[in-house]
Amino acid sequence: MAAIEVCLSPQLLHLYELEGKVVVVVDVLRATSTIITALSHHVERIIPVAKLEQCQAYKKLGYITAAERDGKKAEGFDLGNSPFSYMSNELKGKTVVLTTTNGTEAISKSKSAHTIVIGGFLNIASVAKFLRHTQRDTIILCAGWKGKINIEDTLFAGALLHELGTSFKQETDDCNLSLALYATAKDDMMAHISDCSHVKRLAALGIEEDIRFCLQYNTYNTVPYFNGDALVRL
Amino acid sequence: MAAIEVCLSPQLLHLYELEGKVVVVVDVLRATSTIITALSHHVERIIPVAKLEQCQAYKKLGYITAAERDGKKAEGFDLGNSPFSYMSNELKGKTVVLTTTNGTEAISKSKSAHTIVIGGFLNIASVAKFLRHTQRDTIILCAGWKGKINIEDTLFAGALLHELGTSFKQETDDCNLSLALYATAKDDMMAHISDCSHVKRLAALGIEEDIRFCLQYNTYNTVPYFNGDALVRL
Repeated sequence: MAAIEVCLSPQLLHLYELEGKVVVVVDVLRATSTIITALSHHVERIIPVAKLEQCQAYKKLGYITAAERDGKKAEGFDLGNSPFSYMSNELKGKTVVLTTTNGTEAISKSKSAHTIVIGGFLNIASVAKFLRHTQRDTIILCAGWKGKINIEDTLFAGALLHELGTSFKQETDDCNLSLALYATAKDDMMAHISDCSHVKRLAALGIEEDIRFCLQYNTYNTVPYFNGDALVRL
Repeated sequence: MAAIEVCLSPQLLHLYELEGKVVVVVDVLRATSTIITALSHHVERIIPVAKLEQCQAYKKLGYITAAERDGKKAEGFDLGNSPFSYMSNELKGKTVVLTTTNGTEAISKSKSAHTIVIGGFLNIASVAKFLRHTQRDTIILCAGWKGKINIEDTLFAGALLHELGTSFKQETDDCNLSLALYATAKDDMMAHISDCSHVKRLAALGIEEDIRFCLQYNTYNTVPYFNGDALVRL
């Protein structure tokens, strides 16, 4: 039976062996939710980059670029990090280059894995189905907030472990911890995470709609995966 | 009102500002429980060192030395890391130099803090009393296991936050996470953590007695603190 672990911060990822494994990257608010939404609305490819300068370089080459820092759209780019910005017909079939505060760095740090897929509440059942089908050792990588652990990504890790049930061997205490959080919060997720630091940060920016959207279960069945260059539909 | 944060791994400590703050170092199984026990049984001073070589150097100078690696007593030292080894009359008034897999490194990384105190279930009420009295910004630093997060130290963080109630402003999501774990586990701590990886590791070494001992509440009222050189009674 394949094993599953949770890594609660990209800053702890060096402690985990990635080779041959699947990494599920999660940044519920909002990078991975936005990526799932964009590909579900037929954006063709998303090139994740860790740094603003890389994103600027792509812009000079004529790419559509999207950038978020500290919850806000970064100046000088075409799009920010709200899932609602990626539903338009104009983006259909296009490639978008995306950099965010936490999510794209987490993807970038996972590149030595066998497979990188993108998870969120929006596609949790499809991610679980993919993992059960793949039966490879798996790491759920929470993007966190600037290296610190956050509630919403840990909660997703717990929810995904719950969804997987006994189909994976749970390794490390991070699994117990994520499941305990999920058990506490599952009946009223919005209430539970409304107190968490990143939600306060985003709420102050007036994007409660984004938060509610990102906490929905199984709106999409798209599983974005990294093909070595860009995130595309599986 | 002073603020309190939880840092779930020494490998995340660089993300936290230590200056002017109190750090409560916790390594429930077993380093900090052993330190609390030793000072309560009148060991005079414990010099924590991060590396085996440092401990060996002290041994050459004639010090009583104690060393643990991977749960076992390290070869060539006087003592290991079991709290029961520190109750003897022969150690009264003595100085012991101690190195352990996780706990002493966590202490070592905290040295830029204003005050370092040592916590465990064995002295939780006294630590809470000290913190309430001191009213400085505080970080609870969980020693974890080789950089990874563990259940027993996170559980202690939740228990201490619970004990402190509203007397500190809780910062960062690590507080919510620790409290959620505590809420799930508090009614049967032994059952809950018996499944965790470090307990399995220690149980395999036949030291269940140590585990049960370290999970007791308020056996001692000693609050060990670091005086710049050694851990002593407050």
